[in-house]
Formats: sequence, C-alpha cells, structure tokens
Amino acid sequence: MRAVIFDLDGTLVDSVYAHVLAWQRVLHEAGLTVPAWRVHRLIGMSGGLLTRAAAHETGREISDEDAERLQKRHSAVYTELMPVRQPLPGAVALLRHLRDSRIAHGIATSGKREDARPSLQGLEVPSDTVVVDRSDVQRAKPEPDLFLECQRRLDVPPEECYVVGDAVWDLLAARRAGMLSIGLLSGGYGEDELARAGAYRVYRDPAELLGSIYQLGLRS
Amino acid sequence: MRAVIFDLDGTLVDSVYAHVLAWQRVLHEAGLTVPAWRVHRLIGMSGGLLTRAAAHETGREISDEDAERLQKRHSAVYTELMPVRQPLPGAVALLRHLRDSRIAHGIATSGKREDARPSLQGLEVPSDTVVVDRSDVQRAKPEPDLFLECQRRLDVPPEECYVVGDAVWDLLAARRAGMLSIGLLSGGYGEDELARAGAYRVYRDPAELLGSIYQLGLRS
Repeated sequence: MRAVIFDLDGTLVDSVYAHVLAWQRVLHEAGLTVPAWRVHRLIGMSGGLLTRAAAHETGREISDEDAERLQKRHSAVYTELMPVRQPLPGAVALLRHLRDSRIAHGIATSGKREDARPSLQGLEVPSDTVVVDRSDVQRAKPEPDLFLECQRRLDVPPEECYVVGDAVWDLLAARRAGMLSIGLLSGGYGEDELARAGAYRVYRDPAELLGSIYQLGLRS
Repeated sequence: MRAVIFDLDGTLVDSVYAHVLAWQRVLHEAGLTVPAWRVHRLIGMSGGLLTRAAAHETGREISDEDAERLQKRHSAVYTELMPVRQPLPGAVALLRHLRDSRIAHGIATSGKREDARPSLQGLEVPSDTVVVDRSDVQRAKPEPDLFLECQRRLDVPPEECYVVGDAVWDLLAARRAGMLSIGLLSGGYGEDELARAGAYRVYRDPAELLGSIYQLGLRS
C-alpha cells in the first residue's frame, strides 16, 4: 500500500464532542431537538447533509437558506466551545513519521477550510501537505469525492490507498472510493460500529496506529 | 419482574455529552489532558472515581483535596454548558407509564443531589419518587451500593429488579448487585459495548424501551 488518507475531526484532532454540543445547541435554537448521541452519529457528514439528516430525524424539512445559516452559526458556537484544537495522542508523531518515511499521505475533511485551519496548525503539518476540504468537491462524505480528490492529488490509485477515519461515514465513503479503511475509536464510536461499517482494522487512536504501522505494509 | 431502577444521566436525561466536555475542560485546567472519547467512557462513575481514573490514564496521582476541588469546578462548568436539562425521548412518558401501572421503580445516580435536582424537575417525577444519589451511599458505581440501596427502599429483592443504564458502569454494578440489566444507546456507547458488559437487552432510548415494555414481563 502506498498512501494514507486521513479524516481530520475525531481522527487527528480531538474535536468531535465539541462539534456534537455545538450542533445540538444550534439545531435546538432552530426548533430541531435531536438527542446528543444521534447528533454524534451524524458528525463527519458535511454540514449541509447533517442539518438535513437532523431535520429528517425530527420529521421536518429545512430550506437551503436555513441549512446555510445553521452551518454559519455552528461554526461560531463550535469556536466558542473549543477555542484551542487539541491533536489526538500520537497524531503529530504519526504525520511526522509518514513525512520522514516519504510515505504519501493527505487529509480529507468534510469541514470547511476556515474551520480546518486551526486544527491543521495544531498538527504542525507543512504548508505543502495535501489537504482536501468541503470547498474542493461538489459532494462531501459519505460520497467518495473527498477521498478520490485526495488520491488524485497524491497521484496514487485508489486500490493503493488506506483511509483512516473515526466515523462510519469515512468508512462508507472509503468503500465507495474502492479504498481499504482503518477505524479509530478516538471519535467515540464503538468498535463494532466501525468494524461492521467495513474497517479492515480498528485502533484506539493515532498513537496505537503509529505503534502498529508495520501491520499496514506501507511503502514509499 | 417487579421493579425497574434507572440511571439518570444518559438514561433519562440528555446530559452525557455536556458532562464529557465539562470534565475534559476541568481536567485539562488541572494539567490532566484526556481525550474526550476516554472521558466519555468514564462518565457514570462517581466524580471522585472519575478524577482518579483520569489521573491514572495520564500517569499521575491526585490528592483527595484536588479531586474534591475538580468536582466542584465540574459542577459549575457543566451548569454553564447545559443550563437546561432535556429529558431523552420517551423518558417522561415511560416514568408516567410505570406510575400509572403501579410498577415499582426508582432512580439511582452517581451524581450529587444538587446536580440531579434540575434533571428530576425536567422529568416531572413526583416528590415521593425513590431517588438514591451519591450522598446516600459510601461507594458509587461501579460498586453495587446505589442499586442495592434503591432496591431496599423499593422493598423488592435484587433478583426481581431490572437496572436500566447507558454506561458499562451501570451494567457492571447491576451484575454485582445480582440484578438483570438493560442498556440504552442514548448515552452514546455502542451496542456491543453494552451487550458485552452484560445487558440483557439493548434499546435505543426510553421511547423504544416503553414501546417494547411487554418484553420485560413486569408486574405491579
């Protein structure tokens, strides 16, 4: 295998729970009361899909304008709840290891670039790192577009790529992109949820993945 | 079966994710940086045990005074993050059904009474409902004391009690109390985590439990 494509929130950065509370609060303000654990299971989709899924769960419809407004509000509440982005254990070291070993890798996030920027700074990645975000593709996860765009930029065929993610949406998108996937528990899903969604291996967090990296047969 | 004993946070009230963020922030302020998904898996223990477990995960020790101080600070941050306690779907109706059917039931929480009070108000339970909290026992979950004290007050033998909870600590404490247990996904654990910890059945939330209550063979 020749490349690794990472999800960002919950996979490299400890941000899922703040996203959950921020989305829950914003949805509640808009009259959509969704229990936190249900919001948790929607994180990793694009903000547009998430708002529509939340509306669907409450038996309502929302307009494109409302969906856009809720996403802006979410971004503000999220930043208020989590002013500092904490890399997950091992994330900085894992990315450094891949750079030092000259193994192709990139980051593909359903989030928007302005939300991702502080997380990327915390991860200490150089500015030439391949990063694909919501604005680079027409459709975010669980569509495969983000991973396919990342793979194109890395110039590695899909069947030579691993996707590393914490949400079933990453694993579903990976499968649709023709890539193997690895699940991390660091986004708060249970192990069986990730395994059933198609994860080839499940590790605790980036630190355990780094410690087990010989299991992946990566080459530069 | 003649009685049902409920956990509170994550089982009847949608409060787990706010507890996670509040604990994470308070622990981080004290120099204990614990990823949110690890804090999530500690919720449901008493605050004292949780602070010690978090310290253990970061390879440190904390004094009894520090543990007490962190619990006070958690209570303040939690209230700030979640000023209104939202009952989980079906929780109010489930408790009303048990009252109307004259089926013995109570609530047993690892939390302190002052933290539980707003949640109990949101659940619309009458003041004579049996509620056991942290201050009523020497040792909180995963010790069986809370459930045993609740069962004593309900005057129903342990083997005639179901425990309903969202965390593995509830299921572990139930097993040690000699009670059957039912898991709810509404606290954000995965289904297999609850089943492996001994849950006899796993439902989504109180609403699904109410809809399936004939499966439990309850009698008044």
